[in-house]
Amino acid sequence: MDKVLMSHGGGGSMMQSFISEIFIEKFNNEYLNQMEDAALLPGKTVFTTDSFVVKPVFFPGGDIGRLAICGTVNDISMRGAKPLFLSASFIIEEGFPVDDIKKIVDSMVDAANEAGVQIVTGDTKVVEKHSADGIFINTAGIGILHDEASVSIKNGKPGDVVIVSGTIGDHGMAVMGAREGLDFDPPLLSDVSPLNKMVEKLMALRDAVKILRDPTRGGVAEVLYEIAGMSNVGIKIYEDKLPVKENVKSACSMLGIDYLHLANEGKLVCVVDKDFAYKALEIMKDDKYGKDAAIIGEIDDSGLVTIETIYGTNRIVDRPIGELLPRIC
Amino acid sequence: MDKVLMSHGGGGSMMQSFISEIFIEKFNNEYLNQMEDAALLPGKTVFTTDSFVVKPVFFPGGDIGRLAICGTVNDISMRGAKPLFLSASFIIEEGFPVDDIKKIVDSMVDAANEAGVQIVTGDTKVVEKHSADGIFINTAGIGILHDEASVSIKNGKPGDVVIVSGTIGDHGMAVMGAREGLDFDPPLLSDVSPLNKMVEKLMALRDAVKILRDPTRGGVAEVLYEIAGMSNVGIKIYEDKLPVKENVKSACSMLGIDYLHLANEGKLVCVVDKDFAYKALEIMKDDKYGKDAAIIGEIDDSGLVTIETIYGTNRIVDRPIGELLPRIC
Repeated sequence: MDKVLMSHGGGGSMMQSFISEIFIEKFNNEYLNQMEDAALLPGKTVFTTDSFVVKPVFFPGGDIGRLAICGTVNDISMRGAKPLFLSASFIIEEGFPVDDIKKIVDSMVDAANEAGVQIVTGDTKVVEKHSADGIFINTAGIGILHDEASVSIKNGKPGDVVIVSGTIGDHGMAVMGAREGLDFDPPLLSDVSPLNKMVEKLMALRDAVKILRDPTRGGVAEVLYEIAGMSNVGIKIYEDKLPVKENVKSACSMLGIDYLHLANEGKLVCVVDKDFAYKALEIMKDDKYGKDAAIIGEIDDSGLVTIETIYGTNRIVDRPIGELLPRIC
Repeated sequence: MDKVLMSHGGGGSMMQSFISEIFIEKFNNEYLNQMEDAALLPGKTVFTTDSFVVKPVFFPGGDIGRLAICGTVNDISMRGAKPLFLSASFIIEEGFPVDDIKKIVDSMVDAANEAGVQIVTGDTKVVEKHSADGIFINTAGIGILHDEASVSIKNGKPGDVVIVSGTIGDHGMAVMGAREGLDFDPPLLSDVSPLNKMVEKLMALRDAVKILRDPTRGGVAEVLYEIAGMSNVGIKIYEDKLPVKENVKSACSMLGIDYLHLANEGKLVCVVDKDFAYKALEIMKDDKYGKDAAIIGEIDDSGLVTIETIYGTNRIVDRPIGELLPRIC
């Protein structure tokens, strides 16, 4: 490996090893080594960052601005924290329409208002034509750990229940559709949404909520593999329990894509103590962004991530390796 | 104005109005409106962000990695705060050499160690060939306000003294030289350095240190204009007191460039109560990065930024408008 490949940013196992080898080992410290979506710092401060390079910049159901706010709000939330303050840094290609920036900023403002966060610091760089593709946005964010929170990717134990907060693959397929000119009827919109309010309500269940993770690049499959790996457990899910929109499902079978690999930007995967599973499900279903929430499986001690198909057979879930679709976020 | 121009990112007055109109007015809140290099949040937390797009990625005296650490360390420091934790987010063009990433990461590690900060969270995105130019790095940072700190761009009062911590324009001219193939004898290196230790020592002077600002894009001239504008004062500087390397000075006169417009990445401009000016100067000169520090002028009530030339005449300092040199940081 002497040159960076698209798959090094694809969210799958190639990206994980690239990041471990190139960054984690060198930057090595107790906070980074938590390997969570956000770092937990002293004083219950939670800190995270993401750069957004989605293409196209405007897609059905959202745009890079809403994505940049929700992505960072959600990464903080998945650590069991309340997001408070965001930074916003723009790299803009010379010639990019100013009206498009205004639209993007408006949608950042709307998303920030909805999530109840403030954009408190920023930066703007402009690069020559062809030195960037339109606009890239970085957001970093600071939050404060919920008092009740006790979530970690390492918390999974056999018997725990796995819940997903809604339909799978909407963002990935909506962006793919926009890029490839696919027509969906009914129209398919990205799920890009801030999940902090849902997480805040889940925190009432305290340490019964063991793991929170948003299945973005690499999709639900990658999250399940990360949970299995970091908690040193297995996971079994059930195909007939997976909430997937019909049009996403049929587009996937047409294109030969596994919807478990598709990115989501307004969904979370939650691992809960089994005695609190229905309570957690109820909390999610009561939330604006959780009405299609479903229990999809459970943690076991197999060390494998398996799926029971609608035919009753069992198979290993494919782990995403390289990139399904570049620049999904 | 319907398309973004290079000058919108050039650090001069065009960038200031672009940012005010497009971002500040929309994101409008008490923290962002401080208009400092970093936001001061509740709990004495200081938060900042910068994206780095410097070209070339490796330049005499540094690289984009060292720049990305020092830039954010310095922005936190200029708020009178101690930098603690940084994020690092990479946008990499497909095909970028992995060995170059390793060199950049090594230099980030060195700079972070020198500054005493930790890189605790990160992100990696890869975009297609020609969708970015090599590598862009965003760093955001969190710091904690020094107990003694009382700095703000609005603090300048007539009679205060203006000090610069060393030679002016080294970074800007080093990058320009690397890009244009200019040969300097002796070689000219960028000054890219972390200034947090120097600031920490200056804090012993408590509220006698009124303003700290690092003159990056737009150079010393832009910082003087921002101070004059935000503090509602004038500033007079003296050409014969400005520390400038001979080779920077001669390259500037050859190229018709004002060194006051050249970017610096390891210098600060400090406004100090006049009774503490020599003490502040001594502290700076004792620091590794401040040996060429000099008192360059004073605040007055003229409302103008003026320079007394070596011929004894007075003129208005030119304010940078567009971009002198794109992608300097």
